[in-house]
Amino acid sequence: MKEIQVGLIGLGTVGTGVAKILFEKAEHLQSMIGLPLRLKKIADLDLEKDRGLPIPPGILTDRAQAILDDPDISIVIELIGGLEPAGAFIIEALKKGKHVVTANKALLAQKGDEIFGEAVRSRADVGFEASVCGGIPVILALKQGLVANEIESIHGIVNGTSNYILTQMTEAGLPYEEALKEAQAKGYAEADPTLDVEGWDTLHKLAILMHLAYGAPLGKEPIFVEGITGITPLDITYAREFGYRIKLLAVCRKDGNFLEARVHPAMIPSGHMLANVQGAYNALYIHGDSVGDILLYGQGAGMMPTASAVVSDLVEIGRNLANGIARRIPPALSARGFQKKGLALKPFSDVVARYYIRFSALDSPGVLSSISGILGSHRISIASVIQKGRGISSSVPIVMMSHEAKESDVQEAIKEIDRLPVITSRTVIIRVEAPE
Amino acid sequence: MKEIQVGLIGLGTVGTGVAKILFEKAEHLQSMIGLPLRLKKIADLDLEKDRGLPIPPGILTDRAQAILDDPDISIVIELIGGLEPAGAFIIEALKKGKHVVTANKALLAQKGDEIFGEAVRSRADVGFEASVCGGIPVILALKQGLVANEIESIHGIVNGTSNYILTQMTEAGLPYEEALKEAQAKGYAEADPTLDVEGWDTLHKLAILMHLAYGAPLGKEPIFVEGITGITPLDITYAREFGYRIKLLAVCRKDGNFLEARVHPAMIPSGHMLANVQGAYNALYIHGDSVGDILLYGQGAGMMPTASAVVSDLVEIGRNLANGIARRIPPALSARGFQKKGLALKPFSDVVARYYIRFSALDSPGVLSSISGILGSHRISIASVIQKGRGISSSVPIVMMSHEAKESDVQEAIKEIDRLPVITSRTVIIRVEAPE
Repeated sequence: MKEIQVGLIGLGTVGTGVAKILFEKAEHLQSMIGLPLRLKKIADLDLEKDRGLPIPPGILTDRAQAILDDPDISIVIELIGGLEPAGAFIIEALKKGKHVVTANKALLAQKGDEIFGEAVRSRADVGFEASVCGGIPVILALKQGLVANEIESIHGIVNGTSNYILTQMTEAGLPYEEALKEAQAKGYAEADPTLDVEGWDTLHKLAILMHLAYGAPLGKEPIFVEGITGITPLDITYAREFGYRIKLLAVCRKDGNFLEARVHPAMIPSGHMLANVQGAYNALYIHGDSVGDILLYGQGAGMMPTASAVVSDLVEIGRNLANGIARRIPPALSARGFQKKGLALKPFSDVVARYYIRFSALDSPGVLSSISGILGSHRISIASVIQKGRGISSSVPIVMMSHEAKESDVQEAIKEIDRLPVITSRTVIIRVEAPE
Repeated sequence: MKEIQVGLIGLGTVGTGVAKILFEKAEHLQSMIGLPLRLKKIADLDLEKDRGLPIPPGILTDRAQAILDDPDISIVIELIGGLEPAGAFIIEALKKGKHVVTANKALLAQKGDEIFGEAVRSRADVGFEASVCGGIPVILALKQGLVANEIESIHGIVNGTSNYILTQMTEAGLPYEEALKEAQAKGYAEADPTLDVEGWDTLHKLAILMHLAYGAPLGKEPIFVEGITGITPLDITYAREFGYRIKLLAVCRKDGNFLEARVHPAMIPSGHMLANVQGAYNALYIHGDSVGDILLYGQGAGMMPTASAVVSDLVEIGRNLANGIARRIPPALSARGFQKKGLALKPFSDVVARYYIRFSALDSPGVLSSISGILGSHRISIASVIQKGRGISSSVPIVMMSHEAKESDVQEAIKEIDRLPVITSRTVIIRVEAPE
């Protein structure tokens, strides 16, 4: 092999960033790999758009098939996103013995087992560093840097859009809708923000991390997901009073033979490193049995940070090709590993946490006593309470921080409390996380 | 090859941690590599000491030579520290075609060029993840994860002892000497703390990072080093008033064809991620041209975190051996790379920074005017001044934050000011860093 030929499918934002690096840093990358890395073909349906990047003639095509059919291309980069045709392209590339690099978290989270299975059969590599936390080398850390560790827990801020919105709500005191509009105006949120703000994107990334850290199967486990659309300025204010900040978290934690996994907004102590992750930044807080706590922080999205991750995968695969090998890292972290290790997903109702609970109640005598009575009967004990002055409104917030309690107990207690005539609107709960 | 045989020289704290992982996680590591990783021999001068670790018979020896002479051992781990005989052991191991893993930052910083040169000649790998920031995979990030980037700057808190002392001075208001005693009592500082508190350990790590990021030669460049022994509670209090925290930083930054490199205490804006690195923790803040800002945070020392890094190197080399290859990553980042790229070290006197300057002066009229006159004549302009109430003492602190100024101008101005009769003791300067 005299050079490594690469085909890129999808010349959108990230694809353009990848092409830019491959064109502009060709000499540097060659010295890092030991062989030239040549971007031979780029496939995109839009041949006319000006991407602000000079593309040498003969490279751009509107047929992805031209890349898949090229026997000299050994690495295919898939950056079109979505489930199909991305999935079919990847499977075909693998079947043809090509290696694949992708940033497609939704696809991996849902069809990763099929893709990784095909990669094993074809003895091909799949690089997906860009699928979680953009430019931050978190996949590399789990596959290599922390390989000596049993991963005890992962707490991640992995969705920049949600973190930007929550930061604006916290710093500028904006309500959710306004913070969302601002995020959209600045390009941090899409016109339809559902995937980000409802937690689905965070879930996709969590699934990939659980696969890496525990060999959990992809796309099959029912994981609790709650987004940030219900977070109010009132809860953010109370969080501050209690010394917390609210972040949308991906959480997984090993507990004996069970693996806890969930996506939801959480209150994090304001002195914690994760609480200080602001704006569109991402961070992963990993606890390993040997290494202790690790935080990996940086930009989780955007053209060049994501392109940086894609190119790091190209270099990794390129270094293998330059040495005449493939699949250097054994596929031990497969879905089968999950059962082999005897791990099972813990039902969400069994999760134990501390809770922030905000009741809205009539400002009348005996309310606190009724509420705390019901909580007590469900084995929920209270660490602190804030009940503020009798105001103009007849409904007042009563805010409590619980000691550790079981999710199902909390749900049942809230259901019972919300039926009390003195309760004026649905009770809000936010789980408290203090990752160690 | 049916198994990878490993020899460990040095069964101290980290060595014991490494042996523990290799014995207890043998099955896991085998699945990560594809071949068993067997710790065949351990050499230590003390054969009697109880390390709280059951060592199978026939493994422990007091002769390092037994490891170096064993033709079946393909990886030698050096964990005795210090320059010699560690250096000689490593060179001999490499000459015999063995791969080496070491945590020895002092040795690499001073004799790394010789060691890496021998590794190139012998086609052997040298793993040194544990030499910088303990368990945090920073070497891996620079060699692989951020490989698509030109590294524009690195700001690191890389010495846990100094950071612990500064944190205690800040949080508990302790003077330096008491914070040092506490650090010694807790095992965070050695009986002779010079290497840590005077900045030399930080310099060693900076040299290794500069080698990786820029191909800078090891042990030859004169780099400015200032430790933390001159930091007083007064400066910490003023730092807080201005909105900063004081940290001992390793800094390198590319500026055109120059590379700026220095080790000194610095004031960092209190909202910055680096300012929130507390206690014995380490963090590296890296700015890459594509990826933007990255922070890697965790425990920079200690038995198990450092052992985690050593074992990650073993797995990396083991994965190469299992595939029948070595030196998968080309040695492009050699000392010659520095000259090839046309980089030169910027003289420290040319460094431009903002400065915290604390004068001690007689509380008499005209002092502020004399001081600011001299500063102005040296092109130093002042952003803000704190001059506090006339107290019991006749000497008062006058504290200034400068705009950007050149180091040599600041030094000359201070020299001139310190000669004024109204100045009662030596002026203190602390450089301000706000890494972006």
